[in-house]
Amino acid sequence: MQVLGSYVSGRWAQGTGAAQTLLNPATEEALATASSEGIDLAAALEHARRRGGPALRALSFAERGALLQAVADALQDARDELLQLGIANGGNTRSDAKFDIDGAIATLLAYAELGSALGAGRFLIDGEGLQLGRSPRFHGQHVAVPRHGVAVQVNAFNFPAWGFAEKAAAALLAGMPVLSKPATATAMVAHRAMQVIAEQKILPDGALSLLVGAPRDLPALLGAQDVLAFTGSGETGARIRALPNVIRHSVRVNVEADSLNAAVLGPDIEARSDMYELFLKDVLRDVTQKAGQKCTAIRRVLVPQEALAAVRDDLVEMLGAIRVGNPADQEVRMGPLASGAQLADVIAGMEMLGTESRRISGTSGRLLAKGFFVSPALFEYESDLQAKAVHDREVFGPVVSLLPYTEHPAAIVARGNGGLVCSLYSEDAAWLEQAVAGVAPWHGRIFLGHPKIELSPGPGTVLPQLVHGGPGRAGGGEELGGRRALSFYLQRVALEGSRPVIAGLARGGSA
Amino acid sequence: MQVLGSYVSGRWAQGTGAAQTLLNPATEEALATASSEGIDLAAALEHARRRGGPALRALSFAERGALLQAVADALQDARDELLQLGIANGGNTRSDAKFDIDGAIATLLAYAELGSALGAGRFLIDGEGLQLGRSPRFHGQHVAVPRHGVAVQVNAFNFPAWGFAEKAAAALLAGMPVLSKPATATAMVAHRAMQVIAEQKILPDGALSLLVGAPRDLPALLGAQDVLAFTGSGETGARIRALPNVIRHSVRVNVEADSLNAAVLGPDIEARSDMYELFLKDVLRDVTQKAGQKCTAIRRVLVPQEALAAVRDDLVEMLGAIRVGNPADQEVRMGPLASGAQLADVIAGMEMLGTESRRISGTSGRLLAKGFFVSPALFEYESDLQAKAVHDREVFGPVVSLLPYTEHPAAIVARGNGGLVCSLYSEDAAWLEQAVAGVAPWHGRIFLGHPKIELSPGPGTVLPQLVHGGPGRAGGGEELGGRRALSFYLQRVALEGSRPVIAGLARGGSA
Repeated sequence: MQVLGSYVSGRWAQGTGAAQTLLNPATEEALATASSEGIDLAAALEHARRRGGPALRALSFAERGALLQAVADALQDARDELLQLGIANGGNTRSDAKFDIDGAIATLLAYAELGSALGAGRFLIDGEGLQLGRSPRFHGQHVAVPRHGVAVQVNAFNFPAWGFAEKAAAALLAGMPVLSKPATATAMVAHRAMQVIAEQKILPDGALSLLVGAPRDLPALLGAQDVLAFTGSGETGARIRALPNVIRHSVRVNVEADSLNAAVLGPDIEARSDMYELFLKDVLRDVTQKAGQKCTAIRRVLVPQEALAAVRDDLVEMLGAIRVGNPADQEVRMGPLASGAQLADVIAGMEMLGTESRRISGTSGRLLAKGFFVSPALFEYESDLQAKAVHDREVFGPVVSLLPYTEHPAAIVARGNGGLVCSLYSEDAAWLEQAVAGVAPWHGRIFLGHPKIELSPGPGTVLPQLVHGGPGRAGGGEELGGRRALSFYLQRVALEGSRPVIAGLARGGSA
Repeated sequence: MQVLGSYVSGRWAQGTGAAQTLLNPATEEALATASSEGIDLAAALEHARRRGGPALRALSFAERGALLQAVADALQDARDELLQLGIANGGNTRSDAKFDIDGAIATLLAYAELGSALGAGRFLIDGEGLQLGRSPRFHGQHVAVPRHGVAVQVNAFNFPAWGFAEKAAAALLAGMPVLSKPATATAMVAHRAMQVIAEQKILPDGALSLLVGAPRDLPALLGAQDVLAFTGSGETGARIRALPNVIRHSVRVNVEADSLNAAVLGPDIEARSDMYELFLKDVLRDVTQKAGQKCTAIRRVLVPQEALAAVRDDLVEMLGAIRVGNPADQEVRMGPLASGAQLADVIAGMEMLGTESRRISGTSGRLLAKGFFVSPALFEYESDLQAKAVHDREVFGPVVSLLPYTEHPAAIVARGNGGLVCSLYSEDAAWLEQAVAGVAPWHGRIFLGHPKIELSPGPGTVLPQLVHGGPGRAGGGEELGGRRALSFYLQRVALEGSRPVIAGLARGGSA
């Protein structure tokens, strides 16, 4: 059985002590073990700060972008192997695995392109120069420079490639070294990606490290110049934020946590119309893709009271046709949950939903004796009045709840207390304007369904050009969004003084 | 004796229970009392959210800017009265009081002007529109919309007018209602300002509230759409950040805390040169203005080893000439500290510095039997090797430490672990470039001294156009910076969909 090491301090290191076993979640076959015990985390961080940081800061944005291009190329070359690991260790269908690996590559390429566009500078020029006094001599210019610490990036189990790539791309392009920590249960993809990158010596020494196994006290070792980007449960995010060193040193923490993403069908949309079909298709994709294990997946479906029966019947039919099973079988449309822990959590979540609504599709509990399978489940609410868990408890699996609305639905959507994305399906401009005004402060992204957009990715797909994150329950964080992604890794500083001096200092920056 | 009320839920309310007494810090005469006991804080917040929020969001940026203009005009009309309160309750010299009141008015006017420039929109357009797919039909646009909560703003005792105005201006212009909480000891200025604004009914109901007295559990009442901006001690900032509701609901918190601001004399600057004189003048101003009670004041003066004796002798002479006393006397150049608590803290801080350096100016302890006076103090270090407290302990009074450097000083500056501002005095472009590269990641602002700038405000003055804040010990926050100031009060959201739909939705925004 494979023993996964960690790539830290410029070399591969094996943990000692009790290891965690990584499984194939469809068969429960043991595939590998991993342990981070005994690895010197403080030394790993210091290596990144002392070696990786200066090396990256010495490069221009264009040069850092070229490194990302090379990483993307290397992952592209290893794509088949990575897909197989996603299927075996992640419980992904081949299509799910492509979504992860190709998403990673596309995101790296987008930031490679941004680096090329930013060109020869090594820091960012932030906005226009400012005349500060009566005479133009007294001048101000904001710039944004790479922080001198290390970027620790803790990723969720559901996107071992994409999560790794999108966070690392932004940090490396900004000029900060990365220590990436994949979720252990599905770490084989990120581990192989790191092997490929390290073998080809694509990046400067110390620019990228990978810690496989438990994080131990890693977040407690961070200081004022370090940052921590976390994707995962709100509970873990809260624990990180409450750490004394994080609070005392104002360690920058970005959290992407729980989200009860809502899809809202407008009152103007008729059954069988193109918009209606798009809406159903988006819901179906989000319930089944990666077995519903996407932070952006639709969890709450809000429809006008009079459309409830039609939508319910259509979803029941569509979900009933989904073939669930071992994704090694190419006929299978939906694989298992990623781990036994996830299975237990999803079953507990469905029980909570069941106390306040009616399950009208899917079976309760575990589907098969072996493998972490559940069937896609639809819960129907009579009204929002008895709804509580549906707005509070993210059930991270192929589970969706259907709620009718009578008045404007924004207040119901807002009961989720902050989310990553809300999708709206309407062709009524006035209704859309009101809906957007109501839900916008609660979200990081609003997806406006439109049947004429070819190959629409739906609300569940995170695009590198648009920000990803959300307020409140979603963690209050923000990633991606093109150039916006760099801010988290940069310190903005105002330069104030005489105009020619400031102009000289700003010459090394990219506008 | 005056009893200060709070302006909450659209009216003045008196607290009950044990009140805090506000003094004249020069005479220890009791001037007023204040208590927030018994005031319904939850109702005050809800009033702001329900009444103030919608009223402000219905206005355009230009209309909100006009409100700020009206507030500035009202404070201008009440200027003499506010100056007198600053002198009596704040221990300010008239010049100190002007710095506070005029700073408040200038900042309000700067944001009034920004509102006018932003014009008819009610939210911000954030960046260019983005083509997301192969066809231009699939389109993205980021916008930034006002949060639907309340902005709680907790200000420090040293700038009762400016602190209040700069925070409130940004929130109100962004479209968020404000509940402002001045430090109780010096609250008479903010209280009178609120009276003036309320009497003239300048702002919509619920747009601005003022809580005078203890904050009680105010921060614990905030939710996912609320924000909290805090200026004060790092310890209090840490307590706020660790609150369970703040962590659980990702309440946005901006902290401006401790800062050991450094001024660095370049190795190229000769004694008696214009740059040298500017450097001395900036240090002197920061030690004595407001008795050193500015978060941006120079605390550490770094000079080349060979310049140490000259700088020390010049500073000793200049500080010795400062007349300390009751600022009601117009001959006085420096008043008392703002409270007995501050006096005790500054004396304790000086004792700490004294354990590792030599006090070569000023007297130890309290200067007079009545009033919270100390004399300006200069501490001299033989080298940075024995220095610890000077990089760790912000002594918030007229106290400055002098350290020699031999190699490049950026590493010594960085020992402050994050600050608001660093000032550099050199005419050597290569040295400046290296110094800026070294200190930039640790600061929110870098002031580059230049003798040819007329009326240079020095590093201690916060300008509305430039960001104010700093990483690490300084709290990791950011305020002001023109349009940048609005971000904290806005939710950035990506709109994703068909181009004409997005264009329609973006029409209500300001670019």
